[in-house]
Amino acid sequence: MEITGSPFTLGQAQAHLSAGPLGPRITWKQVDPLLFLQSSPSPSPTETQYDVAILAICIWYFASPGVLAQILEALSTRAKRVCIAEWSLTASTLSAYPHVLAALAQAAVECHNPTSVSNVRTILSPSAIVSSASAAGWTLKNERMFQPAKGTLDGMWEVGAVVDEGYLKEAQRLIQDEKERSVAIALRDAVVASLEAVGGTKGVDSMSVWCGEFVRD
Amino acid sequence: MEITGSPFTLGQAQAHLSAGPLGPRITWKQVDPLLFLQSSPSPSPTETQYDVAILAICIWYFASPGVLAQILEALSTRAKRVCIAEWSLTASTLSAYPHVLAALAQAAVECHNPTSVSNVRTILSPSAIVSSASAAGWTLKNERMFQPAKGTLDGMWEVGAVVDEGYLKEAQRLIQDEKERSVAIALRDAVVASLEAVGGTKGVDSMSVWCGEFVRD
Repeated sequence: MEITGSPFTLGQAQAHLSAGPLGPRITWKQVDPLLFLQSSPSPSPTETQYDVAILAICIWYFASPGVLAQILEALSTRAKRVCIAEWSLTASTLSAYPHVLAALAQAAVECHNPTSVSNVRTILSPSAIVSSASAAGWTLKNERMFQPAKGTLDGMWEVGAVVDEGYLKEAQRLIQDEKERSVAIALRDAVVASLEAVGGTKGVDSMSVWCGEFVRD
Repeated sequence: MEITGSPFTLGQAQAHLSAGPLGPRITWKQVDPLLFLQSSPSPSPTETQYDVAILAICIWYFASPGVLAQILEALSTRAKRVCIAEWSLTASTLSAYPHVLAALAQAAVECHNPTSVSNVRTILSPSAIVSSASAAGWTLKNERMFQPAKGTLDGMWEVGAVVDEGYLKEAQRLIQDEKERSVAIALRDAVVASLEAVGGTKGVDSMSVWCGEFVRD
């Protein structure tokens, strides 16, 4: 995984929080979430271990949609609420469409890669996340969308990864079937074409973020 | 294949032309283009059979990218020029993005369907078409993009086909792998989300059309 982040990396943000007034009350666990949950005992049905579990823009890193399903299932006996934020696959401006298309393009290649370290290994829309949560006993209580602040660079990064020649090499290496490969290449070509209307990669804005709050059924 | 067309079906358009002043000079051949070309002898290198071969918004119906390659190869000894028009995978307005996404979504399912009768069986961008032509000995001489007239309903039709529940059933039936299927479903969800910014399916415009003129190397 690339150690990048803007304006701060994850490590820098955690160090900043630990140094602040809430620092003594925070324990960081850098561990696979499913293994972490499974290693802690499931409490009795009348008690819950956590007030809230938060999945903050992390689902697309999961190895498959099944991982989210298992985490939500494990949380269903361990947390009172689950709050999820994820890229929405929604653009309300022309400048955010390259990010939407680039995420889909990466997913179309990476779904063929069992050892992916891409930022988009599993692509799930808000409605797919709600379905997965619902199957695990969670009810959507509130949801909203917001446009990330100007200068959020994720859109530019994801577009850059698709425009890069490395994307074509990976498509060639990972997708054997000519027709399937042509879909991934068409997605990349759509990303490239989408840049024209926004004046190139520097004109890309990040897509909207979706947030959902879930309570137990 | 659906017998639809707006403002006219293909059959109606052909009948109209045949009834006009050029009618006596027109012969319609409703036949697979590759079989048709292969059934006519390849002329000597110094003569050509046709002044111009036109592929008018037809490539996405081909069974695979290889079919286009074979047709362009067969034409390379039989025509002086090739003119191609195809949907561009480019949107210059928010209202055309649902069409772009819907074409990609259909392709992501139909590439798994060896007996597809969808409007998008093989998806190739303008640059993929230029590459295919180049490999067959054709040089791009001119190209342009244009926005189809308001009221061109293809965008609405393709979006409708993806929003329809039948799309999800086909994805379920044709795509065994959970990760690959989630990409097709994410593409559909992106189509649905894209409709919000344009006020629903009726606000969809068709994407731009690309035209290229090729001459022999």
